[in-house]
Amino acid sequence: MKAYQELSRDELLSLKAKLEKEYEDVKGKGLKLDMSRGKPSVAQLDMGMDIFDVLNSQSDMTSIEGVDVRNYGVLDGLGEAKQMMADIMGVKAENVIVYGNASLNVMYDAVSSAVTHGVMGCTPWCKLDKVKFLCPVPGYDRHFAITQHFGIEMITVPMTPQGPDMDLVEKLVSGDESVKGIWCVPKYSNPQGYTYSDETVRRFANLKPAAKDFRIFWDNAYSVHHLYEEEERQDKILEILSECEKAGNPDMAYEFASTSKISFSGAGVAAIAASKGNLECIRKTLTIQTIGYDKINQLRHVRYFKDFEGIKAHMRKHAALMRPKFEAVLKVLEEELAGTGIGEWTRPNGGYFISFQSMEGCAKAIVAKCKEAGVTLTGAGATYPYGRDPKDSNIRIAPTYPSPEELALATDLFVLCVKLVSVEKLVEKYARTEGFCEKKAG
Amino acid sequence: MKAYQELSRDELLSLKAKLEKEYEDVKGKGLKLDMSRGKPSVAQLDMGMDIFDVLNSQSDMTSIEGVDVRNYGVLDGLGEAKQMMADIMGVKAENVIVYGNASLNVMYDAVSSAVTHGVMGCTPWCKLDKVKFLCPVPGYDRHFAITQHFGIEMITVPMTPQGPDMDLVEKLVSGDESVKGIWCVPKYSNPQGYTYSDETVRRFANLKPAAKDFRIFWDNAYSVHHLYEEEERQDKILEILSECEKAGNPDMAYEFASTSKISFSGAGVAAIAASKGNLECIRKTLTIQTIGYDKINQLRHVRYFKDFEGIKAHMRKHAALMRPKFEAVLKVLEEELAGTGIGEWTRPNGGYFISFQSMEGCAKAIVAKCKEAGVTLTGAGATYPYGRDPKDSNIRIAPTYPSPEELALATDLFVLCVKLVSVEKLVEKYARTEGFCEKKAG
Repeated sequence: MKAYQELSRDELLSLKAKLEKEYEDVKGKGLKLDMSRGKPSVAQLDMGMDIFDVLNSQSDMTSIEGVDVRNYGVLDGLGEAKQMMADIMGVKAENVIVYGNASLNVMYDAVSSAVTHGVMGCTPWCKLDKVKFLCPVPGYDRHFAITQHFGIEMITVPMTPQGPDMDLVEKLVSGDESVKGIWCVPKYSNPQGYTYSDETVRRFANLKPAAKDFRIFWDNAYSVHHLYEEEERQDKILEILSECEKAGNPDMAYEFASTSKISFSGAGVAAIAASKGNLECIRKTLTIQTIGYDKINQLRHVRYFKDFEGIKAHMRKHAALMRPKFEAVLKVLEEELAGTGIGEWTRPNGGYFISFQSMEGCAKAIVAKCKEAGVTLTGAGATYPYGRDPKDSNIRIAPTYPSPEELALATDLFVLCVKLVSVEKLVEKYARTEGFCEKKAG
Repeated sequence: MKAYQELSRDELLSLKAKLEKEYEDVKGKGLKLDMSRGKPSVAQLDMGMDIFDVLNSQSDMTSIEGVDVRNYGVLDGLGEAKQMMADIMGVKAENVIVYGNASLNVMYDAVSSAVTHGVMGCTPWCKLDKVKFLCPVPGYDRHFAITQHFGIEMITVPMTPQGPDMDLVEKLVSGDESVKGIWCVPKYSNPQGYTYSDETVRRFANLKPAAKDFRIFWDNAYSVHHLYEEEERQDKILEILSECEKAGNPDMAYEFASTSKISFSGAGVAAIAASKGNLECIRKTLTIQTIGYDKINQLRHVRYFKDFEGIKAHMRKHAALMRPKFEAVLKVLEEELAGTGIGEWTRPNGGYFISFQSMEGCAKAIVAKCKEAGVTLTGAGATYPYGRDPKDSNIRIAPTYPSPEELALATDLFVLCVKLVSVEKLVEKYARTEGFCEKKAG
């Protein structure tokens, strides 16, 4: 395929006319599809329904340690639930506190209590003039929303296929005591699906932060969320807590995970993993904040999945439903956009997203055009702090929720909009150049 | 029965010898009972087990409004769950946000976000030099723990059978802008089982706070937790939100409730009720803090209880199990301590506690003596801010958890310890008086 940038003005104009007609045709179809969020599909949810047969009126409601899960008691999670979440994160159960239904709240609480009470004896962030977080971009909008909510200044760091630009991370973390944290989705990153390389993880573990209370917010949301069964297509990542310990920085990372995309979204089990020192600090707040989280749901999950093999088997079923969708989107992108020079995209082995990079200044227009024709994408800019993508070019594609048929329609529309907006942009550029030449001539 | 205060020194000494012998006998029995917390009994929990048959692998998981409860979406609760919690609190569903598994966390979040972000546009409390809360005493230790955690100064207000001393509340609230809140358990109060009178509720609704962001923290934890079926033995309370609205103070109250002592402790559904203005402010934080709470558990509860009649019917079953326990404790107290002048106690129509008032300076010793013989009570002082009961006389009795047989043993031990500690105190007083007389003579 010829790069759009090499087309003449006339070629562009005739292409534009053709695309506009196609677009009007699609608009006429009255689509109404939502690809805005990384949501499991109905088929994925149906597949897990037998979890509701695990507990019934005749069930023994006693945990392995003899706790009646229906009553008060146990602040930080059932032993077997700690083990389950530890296995998911690849850490020890003793490093885990089990929380409620989803991990966003755990991250919020971690930031909130650092703001009001400080981290392990350090000054509460609300008493400091300035607190900054590093935000690898593009990244997860809800991370950025938390830091923005607390008035924390966000500094962007570019992502690479190996993880954040570590030269920059090291420089910023070691040179500025007001840098207190960094948001990471280290495996199958949101939105790219990148997995941090071993070198990146080791450089994280060996950071020399100026701030004693600097913490890596390691949101391991997709640790077991592979799309492929072949070992070689399953990304691996070094375990951050043990790497931090080896590096003499045992307290530097908080790790988060949940079963939201294993069992049910927003009705799963969430957890934090951290060092003994961090957990002691967290428990001091937790014991004031809650009488404990829902132990019945913890027991339901543990009895259903049984062990880590059970989790992995369940994730293979998710993958079987998700893989064809990712592949369908990638196929259309490949067929329609390869060589056009108007878009680049990632080809992840797992996670929930594909990251699309349009020509500069096109993302907002593409998303708007899709919306106008009935397909809602994640808002352009959402993957950047304050919703500001300086190049206006990143779009997060979430292929999981629509049915395969809907997905085909939606992706066709998407590439059409990419083409149309890109052509418009190039035509406009021609016009500007001409205007410039005319002016010069005049 | 003769008041202990009227006994001669010799009578006291011989009584003391007799009680000490009895105490040694009880100690020999090797009791191991826990009456420290207001926990439902195993029989109460067993009674609700059929809630786990409500959802199974074949269930329709769609809410009345068409929401798939297994997926993301719906920040502030299913419509039917709002209605359920609204009925429990006696408010409108539109004034309700449904939360997670227990209400303590909701109260914590309300205080925490006031500290970091302020209430409805007012200055965040963390930016103020001084923030104070009024604490009716004796009261609930976990309320006091939250305010203490955030460095909020606690000012005690005496409780009466009609509610807090409202003369004092009005004076403190209207005269001091740093008074930002008051903790209330308005119905079947913890620990007395008192219910605020209509006049008290109206005076609350008509408060003229100096602080615009003063809030009444109305923890309606026991709104449907009657012990008796007869109408005339069921306490009624005026609904605070509508009273506040009538009084021109629509935004002055946050109301909290949960099903922790309806379905299961720590695995129920919690909620806040408040004005539209308050809810708008709360949602601004909530949308950052969480992707939404566990809607599956909300659906399970709604399908199980069906409607408010279902809740009331279920509470009658709880009452049938709890009533004999309250009555057994009250009977022993009456038979053993009436007229002795060494203790007073409440006779609640509902809730989870009986409040016991010993002679001054005896509570800690009574609790310690009980513990030494194998019965754990709520720590003396726990019902006061900072754990400091200035008269050292309040003890919270939680009769619900032990079996009837255990409860008989525990209550016998309790009255024995009350007698023994009181006699020791009176003997000591004699000794001091004598010492004083000898000194004077000398």
